[in-house]
Amino acid sequence: MISKLAILGPGLLGGSIALATRARLQGVHIGVWARRQSAVDAVLATGAANVASTELKAIIQDCDLAILCVPVDSMPELARSMAPWLRDGAVVTDVGSVKKGVVAELSAALGERGCFIGSHPMAGSEQAGLEAARADLFEGAVCIVTPEDNSHPNEIAVVERFWMSIGCVTRLLSPAAHDDTVALVSHLPHFVAAVLVDLICSENRNSLNFCGKGFIDTTRVASGSAEMWTGIFGSNRRNLKKTVDAMIAKLREASALLEPGREPALLEFLRNAKRERDALAGK
Amino acid sequence: MISKLAILGPGLLGGSIALATRARLQGVHIGVWARRQSAVDAVLATGAANVASTELKAIIQDCDLAILCVPVDSMPELARSMAPWLRDGAVVTDVGSVKKGVVAELSAALGERGCFIGSHPMAGSEQAGLEAARADLFEGAVCIVTPEDNSHPNEIAVVERFWMSIGCVTRLLSPAAHDDTVALVSHLPHFVAAVLVDLICSENRNSLNFCGKGFIDTTRVASGSAEMWTGIFGSNRRNLKKTVDAMIAKLREASALLEPGREPALLEFLRNAKRERDALAGK
Repeated sequence: MISKLAILGPGLLGGSIALATRARLQGVHIGVWARRQSAVDAVLATGAANVASTELKAIIQDCDLAILCVPVDSMPELARSMAPWLRDGAVVTDVGSVKKGVVAELSAALGERGCFIGSHPMAGSEQAGLEAARADLFEGAVCIVTPEDNSHPNEIAVVERFWMSIGCVTRLLSPAAHDDTVALVSHLPHFVAAVLVDLICSENRNSLNFCGKGFIDTTRVASGSAEMWTGIFGSNRRNLKKTVDAMIAKLREASALLEPGREPALLEFLRNAKRERDALAGK
Repeated sequence: MISKLAILGPGLLGGSIALATRARLQGVHIGVWARRQSAVDAVLATGAANVASTELKAIIQDCDLAILCVPVDSMPELARSMAPWLRDGAVVTDVGSVKKGVVAELSAALGERGCFIGSHPMAGSEQAGLEAARADLFEGAVCIVTPEDNSHPNEIAVVERFWMSIGCVTRLLSPAAHDDTVALVSHLPHFVAAVLVDLICSENRNSLNFCGKGFIDTTRVASGSAEMWTGIFGSNRRNLKKTVDAMIAKLREASALLEPGREPALLEFLRNAKRERDALAGK
């Protein structure tokens, strides 16, 4: 088990990691780095961190595990800045939503010091920031861990064990398979939700006054941070475009089932979707 | 205020209407008709009904307001069977998800006896049946009331007041405008959710093991009854096909924003969707 944890960036995920670690791993020393002093003060006010600072060295020195919880495009620069302060054998991970290019870049940025193993905890909220952080954010959430071919099993185990200890179920995927998978299960649903909202506003604005719980749930993720999702979509653009094309083709196929006389096929289609979706609810 | 209510069909909606009426309108006599004796027994066991029976006459006689809570395609026959037992001035409404053809057919089926004013409470659940019924199902839900040109204001008021008294916010639309609107805010999201589930199963079944809360919420409605939704889609097929075509066009437009260099436009698109969706959350 780790004894000293460094969290870089106290937003929704970094803050929730601090709260969850404090609640579940009582011997662990928690250090939090933030860019701004106001964020340092806010973290200290939660009582979750043993120490918080705008100085990277103070937080990174002697840590066993460091977790990058900043936007994906700020990660390489942060990794380069922290590399000199990492002790030998320290493991570095992250919480980013895309992995393929990023994992290789971060491994290179850390150089000889510290070993990078990517992580993507599939937990979040349409809310952002430390105010939305919760100790139970990771309970039962899937965390995808994305080792490379040359990653060391012990270091993968450090990362997996940490996520499990704060409530996640971990699963391994290569960085490329991760990006394929999340394009389908995360980026596409987000994109579709935003398109649904946009469609309704442009087709019949008044219909917004008639939304039920179904519409509210189906479009919930469209309330996520526009800045963050622009970054995520951009970094996974090829996979996402491919899944949007597949979605358009499926919508066309399914639309043909709305023709008179196709009711048995429509029923079968909806039954299959229901069976698959019902099975997920138990996960 | 009404003094005697008849509920025809004790499923999720009929059962929830009985429970909500019992909880909020203590003087109202509640009668429930069900096709099967086992359903009558189940309703009596909830304690919500004053009387329940498989005999239409016993439940319909002397009621001020009758609510059809059976599948849309069973409604006309039921309306014809109950017409002879309705007292003059009784108002009849329903809970069906489509209105245009149905409202005209039900008005005709009831003939001189009783006045039909359509309703569509936008409350529900992916679960079905009396076991899922809840007294608070209608709290804050929009109920669309769909009078025809010749509907009498007093009778519209009876229906609106009833829904408000069990927690709904009511809004008026013509039957045709209702079907347009729900194609957009209810039927399309349901259709899209089913297509998303189907796409993921056919593209990469393994990715079902990596679903986060976003996917779970976005596809929740796909767990609704396949039989019920086949009926709903069939009765609103023209409007739904039109909205599916519009969705395909919007997906194409939005997909073009994923090209390199279009980030400012993508950000703007996601910001608009977020702003509109955030505004809904307060409703």
